[in-house]
Amino acid sequence: MLNSNFFMQLAIDEAYKYQLLTYPNPAVGAVVVKNGAVLAIEAHKAAGSSHAEVLALLGAYEKLAQKEIEFDKNDAHISHSFLLNLPKGFFKECEIFVTLEPCSHIGKTPSCANLIKELGLKKAVIGALDPIAGHGGGAQMLKNSGIEVQTGVLEQECLDLIEPFLIWQKRAFVLFKLAQTTNGQIGGGYISSKESLEHVHKLRKVCTKLVIGGNTVRVDRPTLDCRFIDAKAPDVLIFSKEKGFDKTIPLFSVPNRSVEISDGLDFISQKGFYLVEGGEGMLNVLKKYIDWMLIYQAPKLTSKQLSYNVNSSLQFLHIGKNSKDILIWSRFLG
Amino acid sequence: MLNSNFFMQLAIDEAYKYQLLTYPNPAVGAVVVKNGAVLAIEAHKAAGSSHAEVLALLGAYEKLAQKEIEFDKNDAHISHSFLLNLPKGFFKECEIFVTLEPCSHIGKTPSCANLIKELGLKKAVIGALDPIAGHGGGAQMLKNSGIEVQTGVLEQECLDLIEPFLIWQKRAFVLFKLAQTTNGQIGGGYISSKESLEHVHKLRKVCTKLVIGGNTVRVDRPTLDCRFIDAKAPDVLIFSKEKGFDKTIPLFSVPNRSVEISDGLDFISQKGFYLVEGGEGMLNVLKKYIDWMLIYQAPKLTSKQLSYNVNSSLQFLHIGKNSKDILIWSRFLG
Repeated sequence: MLNSNFFMQLAIDEAYKYQLLTYPNPAVGAVVVKNGAVLAIEAHKAAGSSHAEVLALLGAYEKLAQKEIEFDKNDAHISHSFLLNLPKGFFKECEIFVTLEPCSHIGKTPSCANLIKELGLKKAVIGALDPIAGHGGGAQMLKNSGIEVQTGVLEQECLDLIEPFLIWQKRAFVLFKLAQTTNGQIGGGYISSKESLEHVHKLRKVCTKLVIGGNTVRVDRPTLDCRFIDAKAPDVLIFSKEKGFDKTIPLFSVPNRSVEISDGLDFISQKGFYLVEGGEGMLNVLKKYIDWMLIYQAPKLTSKQLSYNVNSSLQFLHIGKNSKDILIWSRFLG
Repeated sequence: MLNSNFFMQLAIDEAYKYQLLTYPNPAVGAVVVKNGAVLAIEAHKAAGSSHAEVLALLGAYEKLAQKEIEFDKNDAHISHSFLLNLPKGFFKECEIFVTLEPCSHIGKTPSCANLIKELGLKKAVIGALDPIAGHGGGAQMLKNSGIEVQTGVLEQECLDLIEPFLIWQKRAFVLFKLAQTTNGQIGGGYISSKESLEHVHKLRKVCTKLVIGGNTVRVDRPTLDCRFIDAKAPDVLIFSKEKGFDKTIPLFSVPNRSVEISDGLDFISQKGFYLVEGGEGMLNVLKKYIDWMLIYQAPKLTSKQLSYNVNSSLQFLHIGKNSKDILIWSRFLG
């Protein structure tokens, strides 16, 4: 009944919970299974911290040994050492499902392919091979060591998952974010839940720059900081032909942030993650450049509170949920 | 890592695939697990056919015996006999997760509680106890036979799942269905995918009556049949003050269907499942009487193709997906 696709889908769904938050790293999910039973479902959470495979193996250890780990699991070096010092064969009946080929190189964190090889897992099931030149080789390393390797499971979905990562290494990855009611209205004050607002602040924290329309700045007078998660506010690009702004608008007085006012599209060719917050105007202006759209859809219908008009096909990539809202991740096809 | 909630959620998600299609039966899902490995995920599909527990046990048999069943699994009598004739103890290490207490009574199909008792499963995990007077007792029957029984796992979600069933035994369960683009527009021809349209036709097939606004009939001139699934068209109630209609509109010439024209709300007190198809007008007229809303949300944004205006809170109950669209099941809070 449950095949590789099922386990890989669990890994993908987990990875989407941290989609973009791992910037500049890719979103990756991993699941450890023993005799068909899922022991752990994990995802990479932030650049510099443990990879998904490591977290899933630590989770599997806790389950198998019935012990709780006391060190910081997100410390990749401690985690690798801990796992490598477990009795030989501890994971020998385990399979790992991972959305992206385990890394063969040693970067900020040690190599995951080497870890899986040393631990001697029974099988590694890989969604997408690492498409970055010089980063691959993990699957081959595992095969060479005698571990059964299966590749290409839900490959397209796993490639979709890392599309932002592939784009932002070459040019701007442009995410258009908006919050709407279920009947598509975007006006009338805060629409989404506190949890959704916190998620927006997490995106703001990691983005290269926050892009916002001049009109929104003038009308809504937003602060555009990360106060809900107590993090540094992002630099802001106000997209506006008209360069004059009332400088008492709160966003201008946030410490340690740069604010640029421009109606140029130079940022599109810059590498990085550009988070666009806006409505109909910005959607239409940036239509050709939007890669993905993230809609926070709230459980309410409102009457005459401003709808937005734009023609575009979308491709739903993932539907997430928090305690109140739906998060719709789409590719924006223009 | 994976606890009872995880397995119960799988059962709930499966049950929503057949939500309302089991009319007049409740939607029920079941999962069979052995040593933490999922063997089968099933749901009750239509009144008179095998219950979810039976289908899940048959699926588990196929997995464990590595044999495919050749008889019609939806024939409850054959399925019960088959399972009862398996070697004693065949399922003794299995646990079953079921969203609704297994039936203790013998109706169109034999009792599931008796079946699970006879098969001697290790454990039964139950979401919601059967709230219908005289229908309960399944859990107690299992306990008495020495099977470990756990109840109340994701109880609220499991009660939500059968809310339509509980309502339509007392009065009309009113489902308001609409198809919209992701920015909430409902005009401009077919919006949802063929798969969504087929799903609508399945709902039409089982509903007590289809309720539609007079304006929609006049403007769209719909047929309102079940041609995509080759089933009998539902009876129609045209909700309209104005009783005059052009009788050449296709819906009037569908064989074996009754069409009533009325602006009365008598149907609300009738037992049954009333499917309302309409837009802003019907939403506002029926606002106080809508129980649930089902939105087929298509992956596109359109410009100025008719939005709908109504004020209501929703409670998202389940987000389903087909190959293109999202299906948003909500409680309509008015």
